[in-house]
Amino acid sequence: MVIEGFEGEPGSRPPMADLLTAGLHASLTDPALEGMNLLNELVMRFPDAISFSAGRPFEGFFRVEDLHRYLRTYCDHLEKELGYTSEQVVRTLFQYGRTKGVIHELIARNLAVDEGIKADPDSIVVTVGCQEAMYLVLRALRTDERDVLLAVSPMYVGITGAAKLVDMPVLGVEDGEELSDLQAVVDRARAEGLRPRALYLVPDFSNPSGHTLSVATRHRLLEIAEREDLLLLEDNPYGLFSLEDERMPTLKSLDTGRRVVYLGSFAKTCFPGARVGFAVADQYVWDGRSERAELFADQLSKIKSMLTVNTPAFAQALVAGKLLESGYSLSSANEDLRQVYRNNLRRLLDGLARRFPPDGPYKVTWNTPGGGFFVVLDVPFTVTDDLLEHCAREYGVLWVPMHHFYDGRSSTNQLRLSCSALSAGQIDEGLDRFADFVADSMN
Amino acid sequence: MVIEGFEGEPGSRPPMADLLTAGLHASLTDPALEGMNLLNELVMRFPDAISFSAGRPFEGFFRVEDLHRYLRTYCDHLEKELGYTSEQVVRTLFQYGRTKGVIHELIARNLAVDEGIKADPDSIVVTVGCQEAMYLVLRALRTDERDVLLAVSPMYVGITGAAKLVDMPVLGVEDGEELSDLQAVVDRARAEGLRPRALYLVPDFSNPSGHTLSVATRHRLLEIAEREDLLLLEDNPYGLFSLEDERMPTLKSLDTGRRVVYLGSFAKTCFPGARVGFAVADQYVWDGRSERAELFADQLSKIKSMLTVNTPAFAQALVAGKLLESGYSLSSANEDLRQVYRNNLRRLLDGLARRFPPDGPYKVTWNTPGGGFFVVLDVPFTVTDDLLEHCAREYGVLWVPMHHFYDGRSSTNQLRLSCSALSAGQIDEGLDRFADFVADSMN
Repeated sequence: MVIEGFEGEPGSRPPMADLLTAGLHASLTDPALEGMNLLNELVMRFPDAISFSAGRPFEGFFRVEDLHRYLRTYCDHLEKELGYTSEQVVRTLFQYGRTKGVIHELIARNLAVDEGIKADPDSIVVTVGCQEAMYLVLRALRTDERDVLLAVSPMYVGITGAAKLVDMPVLGVEDGEELSDLQAVVDRARAEGLRPRALYLVPDFSNPSGHTLSVATRHRLLEIAEREDLLLLEDNPYGLFSLEDERMPTLKSLDTGRRVVYLGSFAKTCFPGARVGFAVADQYVWDGRSERAELFADQLSKIKSMLTVNTPAFAQALVAGKLLESGYSLSSANEDLRQVYRNNLRRLLDGLARRFPPDGPYKVTWNTPGGGFFVVLDVPFTVTDDLLEHCAREYGVLWVPMHHFYDGRSSTNQLRLSCSALSAGQIDEGLDRFADFVADSMN
Repeated sequence: MVIEGFEGEPGSRPPMADLLTAGLHASLTDPALEGMNLLNELVMRFPDAISFSAGRPFEGFFRVEDLHRYLRTYCDHLEKELGYTSEQVVRTLFQYGRTKGVIHELIARNLAVDEGIKADPDSIVVTVGCQEAMYLVLRALRTDERDVLLAVSPMYVGITGAAKLVDMPVLGVEDGEELSDLQAVVDRARAEGLRPRALYLVPDFSNPSGHTLSVATRHRLLEIAEREDLLLLEDNPYGLFSLEDERMPTLKSLDTGRRVVYLGSFAKTCFPGARVGFAVADQYVWDGRSERAELFADQLSKIKSMLTVNTPAFAQALVAGKLLESGYSLSSANEDLRQVYRNNLRRLLDGLARRFPPDGPYKVTWNTPGGGFFVVLDVPFTVTDDLLEHCAREYGVLWVPMHHFYDGRSSTNQLRLSCSALSAGQIDEGLDRFADFVADSMN
């Protein structure tokens, strides 16, 4: 058969094949994506290695019976608080439903209680994880080759991936307390005839850098966004997990000009298996004719109707159950979990300090995040995927080379350690193995 | 502020707006999408109208307690049949998981039992409804402006919508027993420098036409697909719901050359609220270098990892529970439901025959589907959205103007009636109202 897009050497014979990668969308051969697949593959190949690589939540508090209770709690809420008939309850759970979701009122209350965000429930789109919310926003904003996304770099691979699906270039803005080169990146883009539409960032305990933006920087970002007509895509999966009790205000809670699209996730505060996230998109969208504007959330909802139709009602019900049982405060519902993450992060930072003292033989340094799951190390040697594989095989410990978070680069002197899913003993043992690896890598 | 993409008349002042529709992706102003929103809006505005418009499943057999049992059944399966520890069960349900899904083995058994399809479980990607599966396939196949999709017309709006999201033009192939103009459409496209990648179709009781392809036509389609290097995207949501007991073989069960990507849905055979569908994509994909090819399913999985990451494990568990309890046969599990749909379709067809006899005053004709949810009527007047609104307000009955299923057209002489979610009494009353509407529309 003719193979669509076959471009092998003259005479080269393909194995039995129906399609060629060259005949498929470019996102499928993107380095960022290939990188993540390689990392997942290494985790599979070395199941006994201690993994500092995954940003998965701690599993110790998950209970199957909770799922049954959450579902009953939500059904009781529908019947007793909202006065639904049993037919309406059944319809809500089993049938096609509202594209923007059915737990938007509960999410709005949670945002008020935990994040200081006053969100109109109609401005909330419940999505299949935060990843779908990212896609919906980028799909809406990418109209032609002039539209580009800005993202704080090093970048979360999820946003890079979503951008690839809509062929949207991503321009990096160097991470750091000030995000001081944002204006320069915007100016350069406009000079090249490009149209920067939005800046993606994780203001609290960023993935992968662990950085947190100061309040002053948050205010300055909102000013720049207003002046440059940028949206700020605020992704906040780790905000609850601060080392200290006081927290920074979310960008959205400071947003008086509808510049921020807030991207929410329940993966770390409830359970990843539900795949429930959301976007708060309260921007007004005008068609140039009508008397009144629509909400951006309703535009995102239209795209969702062509992508996943609904977020599974059963999954929404489980998250709703946990929200209802906690009085809408995931901060209080996760008190034990927050303590686990604080202890793990402190143990990781203390363990690094003990093993790599400033006056020690190895020049290993790291940042000290105010919370979250991630610490970035600077090491005195080049960090590649091959080195990771060597470390996994010979030392039984996994981590993530930072180059995966820089679009295009193939190596840096940095690596990321994650401690969210590990026990204290695993952290200690893992750091011992890691220290041996560093020592041997120097000689 | 500057409004991105503002193109109003000089001096025209927009209402308070942050974004303009003209500055958002073209899919958001697509007629097909606007049409569906209008139809949904009419259903909301006339809640007391009898709706022949929605293709929703019958709700009479849904029970909330079944959800709890399905979840327990799946957990028992993991522990007792697969030997999972309780930690592994918890991880499967709560944690991030396999991108291609966790119930692929069960789906493969169901396909063998109900559809005569021998599917390698690794070739199955479990998706957030069949809609996500459509998107994944089209995203993979659309590489540049030359790639086009063929679809049997009148077209299911879901495939039109998914194509809009990847900016993929859709060329209509006229519906009918033979699909006789397929070759001509392919030739014309190639002559214009286009690259037809796939043909989307619903071979059994199509939505909206109700048509079913003969076995001979199915074999001929497979020949054309092989010769023209087309994939056949077989969507089969209604296959179980035939009027008679004998069923046609699925295209996939006849597919010896890996030409068919089978698109499966559990929305009609389990529950829409789960949003669980899947694709069987067993095509070999070669990168032009490697010794061995990959499965197309693994390419779709890579795209899914950038779109929704996983299909919610909880939702997969509920479908799995129903599959396990039925011995993998949704045909037998849905015996009562199949009878409801048969009775409804017969009642609709008989009711039409009684109200619009051949020798009667009104030239109303319709097709006689072999099953499924839909009947298409030809009426002696032009069917527009305004007429539908008039019918809803004055006669309290809803249906769908067929022009919504023809990309671009604004009116036809056809309308679609759906009977899946109605009671016998609603069908009779709805047809009485509809007959009055037809009579008055003639005068």
